[in-house]
Amino acid sequence: MLDKVKPETSIEAVVEQFHSVRALTESLCEHLDVEDYNLQAMPETSPVKWHLAHTSWFFETFILKPFQTGFEPFDRDFEYLFNSYYNAVGAQFPRPRRHLLSRPTVSQVEQYRHSVTQAVIKLIKQSEQHLEQILALVILGINHEQQHQELLLTDLKYNLFQNPVLPCYRNSHSSKSNTKQKTELSKHQWVEFEPGLCQIGQDVGDGVDSKFAFDNESPKHKHYLEAFQLGSRLVTNGEFIEFMDDGGYCRADLWLSDGWVTKNEQDWSSPLYWFKDGDTWYHYTLNGVTKLCMDEPVSHVSFYEADAHATWKGARLPTEQEWERVALEYSLEGNFLEAQHFAPSLSKRKRLVEQLYGELWQWTSSSYSPYPGYQILPGAVGEYNGKFMANQYVLRGGSCVSSREHLRASYRNFFYPDARWQFSGIRLAKNL
Amino acid sequence: MLDKVKPETSIEAVVEQFHSVRALTESLCEHLDVEDYNLQAMPETSPVKWHLAHTSWFFETFILKPFQTGFEPFDRDFEYLFNSYYNAVGAQFPRPRRHLLSRPTVSQVEQYRHSVTQAVIKLIKQSEQHLEQILALVILGINHEQQHQELLLTDLKYNLFQNPVLPCYRNSHSSKSNTKQKTELSKHQWVEFEPGLCQIGQDVGDGVDSKFAFDNESPKHKHYLEAFQLGSRLVTNGEFIEFMDDGGYCRADLWLSDGWVTKNEQDWSSPLYWFKDGDTWYHYTLNGVTKLCMDEPVSHVSFYEADAHATWKGARLPTEQEWERVALEYSLEGNFLEAQHFAPSLSKRKRLVEQLYGELWQWTSSSYSPYPGYQILPGAVGEYNGKFMANQYVLRGGSCVSSREHLRASYRNFFYPDARWQFSGIRLAKNL
Amino acid sequence: MLDKVKPETSIEAVVEQFHSVRALTESLCEHLDVEDYNLQAMPETSPVKWHLAHTSWFFETFILKPFQTGFEPFDRDFEYLFNSYYNAVGAQFPRPRRHLLSRPTVSQVEQYRHSVTQAVIKLIKQSEQHLEQILALVILGINHEQQHQELLLTDLKYNLFQNPVLPCYRNSHSSKSNTKQKTELSKHQWVEFEPGLCQIGQDVGDGVDSKFAFDNESPKHKHYLEAFQLGSRLVTNGEFIEFMDDGGYCRADLWLSDGWVTKNEQDWSSPLYWFKDGDTWYHYTLNGVTKLCMDEPVSHVSFYEADAHATWKGARLPTEQEWERVALEYSLEGNFLEAQHFAPSLSKRKRLVEQLYGELWQWTSSSYSPYPGYQILPGAVGEYNGKFMANQYVLRGGSCVSSREHLRASYRNFFYPDARWQFSGIRLAKNL
Amino acid sequence: MLDKVKPETSIEAVVEQFHSVRALTESLCEHLDVEDYNLQAMPETSPVKWHLAHTSWFFETFILKPFQTGFEPFDRDFEYLFNSYYNAVGAQFPRPRRHLLSRPTVSQVEQYRHSVTQAVIKLIKQSEQHLEQILALVILGINHEQQHQELLLTDLKYNLFQNPVLPCYRNSHSSKSNTKQKTELSKHQWVEFEPGLCQIGQDVGDGVDSKFAFDNESPKHKHYLEAFQLGSRLVTNGEFIEFMDDGGYCRADLWLSDGWVTKNEQDWSSPLYWFKDGDTWYHYTLNGVTKLCMDEPVSHVSFYEADAHATWKGARLPTEQEWERVALEYSLEGNFLEAQHFAPSLSKRKRLVEQLYGELWQWTSSSYSPYPGYQILPGAVGEYNGKFMANQYVLRGGSCVSSREHLRASYRNFFYPDARWQFSGIRLAKNL
Repeated sequence: MLDKVKPETSIEAVVEQFHSVRALTESLCEHLDVEDYNLQAMPETSPVKWHLAHTSWFFETFILKPFQTGFEPFDRDFEYLFNSYYNAVGAQFPRPRRHLLSRPTVSQVEQYRHSVTQAVIKLIKQSEQHLEQILALVILGINHEQQHQELLLTDLKYNLFQNPVLPCYRNSHSSKSNTKQKTELSKHQWVEFEPGLCQIGQDVGDGVDSKFAFDNESPKHKHYLEAFQLGSRLVTNGEFIEFMDDGGYCRADLWLSDGWVTKNEQDWSSPLYWFKDGDTWYHYTLNGVTKLCMDEPVSHVSFYEADAHATWKGARLPTEQEWERVALEYSLEGNFLEAQHFAPSLSKRKRLVEQLYGELWQWTSSSYSPYPGYQILPGAVGEYNGKFMANQYVLRGGSCVSSREHLRASYRNFFYPDARWQFSGIRLAKNL
Repeated sequence: MLDKVKPETSIEAVVEQFHSVRALTESLCEHLDVEDYNLQAMPETSPVKWHLAHTSWFFETFILKPFQTGFEPFDRDFEYLFNSYYNAVGAQFPRPRRHLLSRPTVSQVEQYRHSVTQAVIKLIKQSEQHLEQILALVILGINHEQQHQELLLTDLKYNLFQNPVLPCYRNSHSSKSNTKQKTELSKHQWVEFEPGLCQIGQDVGDGVDSKFAFDNESPKHKHYLEAFQLGSRLVTNGEFIEFMDDGGYCRADLWLSDGWVTKNEQDWSSPLYWFKDGDTWYHYTLNGVTKLCMDEPVSHVSFYEADAHATWKGARLPTEQEWERVALEYSLEGNFLEAQHFAPSLSKRKRLVEQLYGELWQWTSSSYSPYPGYQILPGAVGEYNGKFMANQYVLRGGSCVSSREHLRASYRNFFYPDARWQFSGIRLAKNL
Repeated sequence: MLDKVKPETSIEAVVEQFHSVRALTESLCEHLDVEDYNLQAMPETSPVKWHLAHTSWFFETFILKPFQTGFEPFDRDFEYLFNSYYNAVGAQFPRPRRHLLSRPTVSQVEQYRHSVTQAVIKLIKQSEQHLEQILALVILGINHEQQHQELLLTDLKYNLFQNPVLPCYRNSHSSKSNTKQKTELSKHQWVEFEPGLCQIGQDVGDGVDSKFAFDNESPKHKHYLEAFQLGSRLVTNGEFIEFMDDGGYCRADLWLSDGWVTKNEQDWSSPLYWFKDGDTWYHYTLNGVTKLCMDEPVSHVSFYEADAHATWKGARLPTEQEWERVALEYSLEGNFLEAQHFAPSLSKRKRLVEQLYGELWQWTSSSYSPYPGYQILPGAVGEYNGKFMANQYVLRGGSCVSSREHLRASYRNFFYPDARWQFSGIRLAKNL
Repeated sequence: MLDKVKPETSIEAVVEQFHSVRALTESLCEHLDVEDYNLQAMPETSPVKWHLAHTSWFFETFILKPFQTGFEPFDRDFEYLFNSYYNAVGAQFPRPRRHLLSRPTVSQVEQYRHSVTQAVIKLIKQSEQHLEQILALVILGINHEQQHQELLLTDLKYNLFQNPVLPCYRNSHSSKSNTKQKTELSKHQWVEFEPGLCQIGQDVGDGVDSKFAFDNESPKHKHYLEAFQLGSRLVTNGEFIEFMDDGGYCRADLWLSDGWVTKNEQDWSSPLYWFKDGDTWYHYTLNGVTKLCMDEPVSHVSFYEADAHATWKGARLPTEQEWERVALEYSLEGNFLEAQHFAPSLSKRKRLVEQLYGELWQWTSSSYSPYPGYQILPGAVGEYNGKFMANQYVLRGGSCVSSREHLRASYRNFFYPDARWQFSGIRLAKNL
């Protein structure tokens, strides 16, 4: 992750990407009211303002502070206020209370962003001594900010949803989706894969043309896979409703024990954001409330719901290695943040296995754990991934609110098995 | 409370008072940033924006809706969103989640306020048939809004305090207080009162010159008081520190059992808003952080702390009847909201018993309960007071953030015994 | 409470009473299995074994320890294990965990009881110097043990009830009650009382013929009562079912705000111990499950339910002073522990106001607070009552599991308003 | 697991084993007082009496009920009371409330055990038609009861420990341990293993000489292992104290994020059961309180503590596959329940890798999940293992309170990562 950037990586290219990522983040907030920036309905979600500040804090703390001559923080309080979880940097303002920070104001945070953006660019252009190290950290920061772009939208969706007036984030959806509805849904098929040893993961910087990868994707290693089948596309809303209509939420035999307890405690009877009016199902999206399209992939389900659905179907979730082995055969195509669609779309079958990237994060049956030979990085950035390798489950593929350039076959996302506010969906697998 | 308004009450006077109370509420928000309007650090506090909307909802629901011809609500969602606790009106958006309402925006709520204000004035001026009933309700609404002016400031103080940068609400304090510090504190003395039957409470509308009173102050009734002594002024910060220095927060023998449990659970070791830097005590006020003035009355203590301090002093808290019996002998003078001082000030001894009104609400030992003969009003306004007559304790006298014209000797405020975010202080009493 | 015992009180009489109270406690456990002694279904209830030990601890700690020459504790650990809440004595084993004490065993606790009983009697017989003080403490201990006899049964009823097999404590009930059912229920009538000053409370030791009283009943003092009406008997099961059938548990307008919240949180829809099979109501009693007798007084209701029922009836609960003023006119008759009936019985109208004593504790509208002039006793026994004078409500009259000789008109019992496991019932009052 | 038992398995051998397992369970309770049978200090632990009844319920429900002609349950209530978590059987009495069942008494449960034992033996001896199926279920029940023997002791240790008098379960320890202390501790060494594909797991009934295995150990499958090193013995108390003395419990950088949160919430600063008196460490064992032996393996640590210790040591925990690959090379020797030592003992180095079996369960880094090709069994027994395959971590090897004959190299135990009351210890691993 933090190895030196190769000479081939031109400084201009990095500056360009840095600029465009910073600008994209800000453009995502264009249509918000000031009041929308501070919502936090549960500790796991952060206010928009906090995301804006924290992504600047990251560049300030890990690049400007150690490398900028005569560094002065934009505001001394920010080190504490906008530290997410880096104990090596210092104490953190408690996450569940982020909504209580009316100050700094949105406008002050915008100034903070601007100031950091300028200072980083200036630093890159003027540095000689530590340039490679700085560029590597800038690339890390860019990837970090891309993650927060997705989180910003995901959290905002959850937070706006708490308001009974159900405010709409954008309205990019309706016109386009009308056309799309006419597309015919591809049939779900089982695609078979041979047993054998395969290569999993990606070494950090293992070649001239090496792409960025997080440390949790390393090292590249061998993994033996038994023969398996993978579903050709994601499970749809219509297919999930069949599960519901068959008593899916009421049959303990379909659920993991912890899932059953969670479902009862949290009183789940459908995916998050769904509600029924008469016989019609609707769901809340970033484009407002829309009638549920039966052919679109089911989204905002927990690992437990994904697992129960798979059990009901006589199938199972894929392991992350199975998913990656298949994904390596396919190019990176899908419905990404860049499309500004902000919602999953249906599968149109152009390839044997469809919807691998974009659309929705796909729950795997793999507990998030270190790969064989994984080493935690030294220092504060070592806290980026390694310390979370317990109790969470790996999701693969990226979603409709992930940047395309942020993703790859080896990318590992991870959330707790009860999480439903992420853009998460279901792909099935089966033993042969 | 809701009896007909006497002919002597001129319509103009009511309109004038209505106008000025609405304007005062809005002026209290003059210096706030938009981000400040939505803070809610605990369920018991409401966001500023919610207070602004709810006080309009009150007029809209109880006056415009029943009496305005062709009534149309400003927004149909508001009936649910801004109902505080009136079950007879309908369901309520859950109180702990008020901070999640980014919409309506501050600007929309300001429009709502303006619209309701205009409509009420128009209704008063044009009504003939129900005029007396309407005027009575307007007066109730005015008193209701005055209560919320105090709550708005009290809640805001608590909510801003959660931010480690400790934002300042106003800065009206510093210059004045410097001068004031030179005033000499009056000595605490025990003032004796004879035993005997006294009159407590105030009938609603019991004469031509009747002032408004809430239903919980009625009916006027006889109460027998044994001889007692009342402290001549409020307990000061300095006196409270003596209690602390004597182990006040560590001695179970001084505390009520529930108080001791609460103190331990909430980890109290000083009044709310206090903190120590080296040997110096500071506290957070609406005017920002200031050094604690030893001669000013101690504020933001719970009933339990007030009771423990009294026990330590070999004294007790007064009953609400003792307090009222004394207050009836004194005119309504003190440090009220109108002074825009936003903090208590020290006692300058001009009268035998000082600081009865304004400054700080004074905890009494009286559990909030119905007076003999009390009748709950019919309909939704009957929920105003009666249903809260359990488990709370009565406070008397008003505070530095209460309107002077809102107060009187018979006025009963009430909070749970663990509440500390109110402007609450301590007056002692003693048996003879 | 702790004043010196008068010469008229013969030592023999005290020893005799001490003996018989200790024996009665033990006889209450006669039919229990060893397994029954350690149940604790909620922190508010204590295991039978703990009651047996704690009542011995009381005599050991407050009498043997200070007065017995060469005192050696029965077991050094017991000072900690069986201290209920006396901070002045020392730390306490946490109340919610009392069920975790398998050791000392029942048999060891029985030895402890025997040892303490013998030692106290020996001390009384041999003491000269501190005899009066010791006798006063023994009388306090006797009254303390009588309170725990009631608690032992009340707690045991609650704890056995958790077992789905619904074990029966005794079967003293069935035959007798069959006969009793034939008795006709007296009609509920309103008995009027004149306004005026009355005497409330009882001084501790205020005369030659003075009976024991707890400190919370003192001092005797004047209280002014407006005219009122008191219900001639307790509210019956049948009358309470009318309230239920009229939607009593579903109408927010009938409930105190805190009561409504509690009812919803705890999901109450009938008194504790009731259940319905088809159209028939049953309830669990210490004599096992029986069909609900409509004419017997309703029991095991909280203050909130009592208050809601009264509101529904257009009435209210009496104040404790109203109750006492009436009770002083009546002799101490009723259905007490001595009858070993262990359940309330119906009113047979022999007197104008019936069922004042025995049967069920009657909720009053009075918050438990110190009487004017009340002084907490010095030392550990001062923790007996005073520190609980907040947030609880006074109940009067005693129940079918109270000893007759433990009760009197001035006796004040107190529990939190949500408590339902006590033998608590409803008497109504009304303004004139 | 439930495949048919081979002809080679003589009926007599099964009956013999059944008999001896049932008798062993009962012998573990020999020295208990009746009061000890019902303790439950946290929901995860069950009372001794419940274990005794539930293991009988298992035979009654899965064998007698379906196969015994004219089956009558011992007590109809038991189906509900002693069902642990089998939803397919029916509802379950809530686990956290098991301590509230004073009835059935210990004596009644002993009768229940006797009755079930006799009936099962009779059924085996008389059956012809379903004999193979019955025998397979008896063997499952035997293994189930062996698991509960360990749980009975593990839970009892935890529950007795809550009592400040720290009751001793047995005193088998002291004399022997004195001798043992003289043994010299073997040096901790890193033993290297080559990379390669290995066989993991055991098919259920895959041969004539097949030993029983649970379904979660199947199917046998290939797994690729990179080269690794395994610690030659378990981590000792002395080594763990080095970690503590180096601030192990205070350094966030050593802990998984969830572990750090848990440690803070539960206020851990040493393994469970440890306490310090002056400079000396003691711990509570089933043999009472003993001085901590520095050379004995550290026990009662959570996965989080095991992981933090490994990180501190520059090592990691082994995967379950690494552990199994090594264990397959060693015979089943160790300190098992049969030794009645009830506590771990020190490593005496007789083999290259020591303490693989017996002593303590060894945390692995493997999340408990289904093996490739795993199929949940149909019916209620399918709930035995599969539904728990989330959020738990695998432990391997067995402990000093496991039966020797219950264990094997492929055996998978599993607990939540915060569990400390199990006999769990630490073995280290390392990348090459």
